[in-house]
Amino acid sequence: MQSDGAQGVTLPSTVGLVGLGLIGGSLGLDLQALGCRTKGVTHRQVTADRALERGLVQEVSTDPQSLADCDLVILALPLERLLDPDPALVRALPEQAVVTDVGSVKGAVLSTWRSLHPRFVASHPMAGTAEAGVEAGVRDLFRGRPWVATPEASTDPTALAMVEAIAAALGSRWLLAEAGRHDQAVALISHVPVLVSAALLQAVASERDPAVLDLARQLASSGFADTTRVGGGNPQLGTAMAARNTAAVLRGLAAYRWSLEQLEEAILEENWGQLESVLTHSQQLRPDFL
Amino acid sequence: MQSDGAQGVTLPSTVGLVGLGLIGGSLGLDLQALGCRTKGVTHRQVTADRALERGLVQEVSTDPQSLADCDLVILALPLERLLDPDPALVRALPEQAVVTDVGSVKGAVLSTWRSLHPRFVASHPMAGTAEAGVEAGVRDLFRGRPWVATPEASTDPTALAMVEAIAAALGSRWLLAEAGRHDQAVALISHVPVLVSAALLQAVASERDPAVLDLARQLASSGFADTTRVGGGNPQLGTAMAARNTAAVLRGLAAYRWSLEQLEEAILEENWGQLESVLTHSQQLRPDFL
Repeated sequence: MQSDGAQGVTLPSTVGLVGLGLIGGSLGLDLQALGCRTKGVTHRQVTADRALERGLVQEVSTDPQSLADCDLVILALPLERLLDPDPALVRALPEQAVVTDVGSVKGAVLSTWRSLHPRFVASHPMAGTAEAGVEAGVRDLFRGRPWVATPEASTDPTALAMVEAIAAALGSRWLLAEAGRHDQAVALISHVPVLVSAALLQAVASERDPAVLDLARQLASSGFADTTRVGGGNPQLGTAMAARNTAAVLRGLAAYRWSLEQLEEAILEENWGQLESVLTHSQQLRPDFL
Repeated sequence: MQSDGAQGVTLPSTVGLVGLGLIGGSLGLDLQALGCRTKGVTHRQVTADRALERGLVQEVSTDPQSLADCDLVILALPLERLLDPDPALVRALPEQAVVTDVGSVKGAVLSTWRSLHPRFVASHPMAGTAEAGVEAGVRDLFRGRPWVATPEASTDPTALAMVEAIAAALGSRWLLAEAGRHDQAVALISHVPVLVSAALLQAVASERDPAVLDLARQLASSGFADTTRVGGGNPQLGTAMAARNTAAVLRGLAAYRWSLEQLEEAILEENWGQLESVLTHSQQLRPDFL
């Protein structure tokens, strides 16, 4: 183990990265720069070869048994694979290692993983680009971005400290939250916006007068483009978020529906003072989220 | 009158600009570059002075009678002032001049103006920045942007041709539409998105658990910022759009509510295939509006 001078906490000597897409590949690049030995595990040999070519990790294998000497294993897998893990991977995880994940829904991850490994830490580095796959990894993806961990009473505190040391060394903002609260917060700021935004595209496309629809296409500008950006994103990802964070998403949608009804009611009642007051409040609220 | 070589249509020699904010000021700058004589009319002397200092127009006055020798008068006023025009302005508009407006709702504008001037042309140059007021005018604001006119059977065709010549000379994309269809299209791509986006800010802010709300604030990133941008905009403008385009906005909101319900229903029924299919459709739709 090496000492991380800034934090006085040790960084792991050898880090295993399961999955070398955007998150796993970016972690590999940054961890090497921090002096860690990095070992990648990928499903397919062609990904393994390309990851080595790109220098995402120093060693790579398609066999999870290669993780045997890791101090830390980061499961940088898509949510669905994280929630239905390959039994060979679970068996191969060294018992003494710290194991963490990068999934965007923490309740479901803990339900699956708290019984699968004694030193599991549920965590969520919140960084992304529009890219995915073995070509996507970049340096400094996590700098200045939040990294949330959602420890439980049973979480090993020394394991948690190791994940925090990694997050700090990568320049992330470290946050602790209860898993349910994390899931509700990300439902509000990420999962519900995808649905709100997708519904807008659906509503416009459902216009029955072809002349109006054609005009809408020609007149749409940056405001429409911004409002629909997340709704026009990866459909598999949007579906996985709703499927794995269902209760929080439905709660968020209910709050959203109520808010929209208030606006619609003000318009129906031609209560323009009320509408302007809500829009003024919205204008004041937004800077808190930037 | 000068000849516009590209179109073979005459541009007006003298253009009156009533209002020298973003739209009026930008028109003044571009029209001078095209060789037109420009005369501004503003409500306040201090705005008139500043407009001259900035060179937005060549002459400026607070008296609408100064418009007497204009070939074209462009009413670049906020929607509310356009729909409740100063009687002194209406009286001062020369009968032989072409009169047009820049309002973003055309049905209400025509209701007011079709009886106020024989050569009125309802039009809507769709360009904007976040700026407003006498400091906002910039060159080339309209280049490449749509400029929609909504003529009626009673619209003077030579008046319409003059507005088209101006739009073409400024580099705009000229479009003709029936006023009701224009209003429905802008409701869908501009007015409804403001409400959809504002409701998201309201929904998040209505979260009752302060720890979740605080986390939402800390975790919100570019996706949330984009989805809420138009909802956090000018509240007076958002209110005026709803107040002056009420029927189209309510129709658009009804379509939106239905679309959102479809998504919510798929989640409630855990019909993930259906949800993914709608999100895939949304992803395919979006490029048509960019």
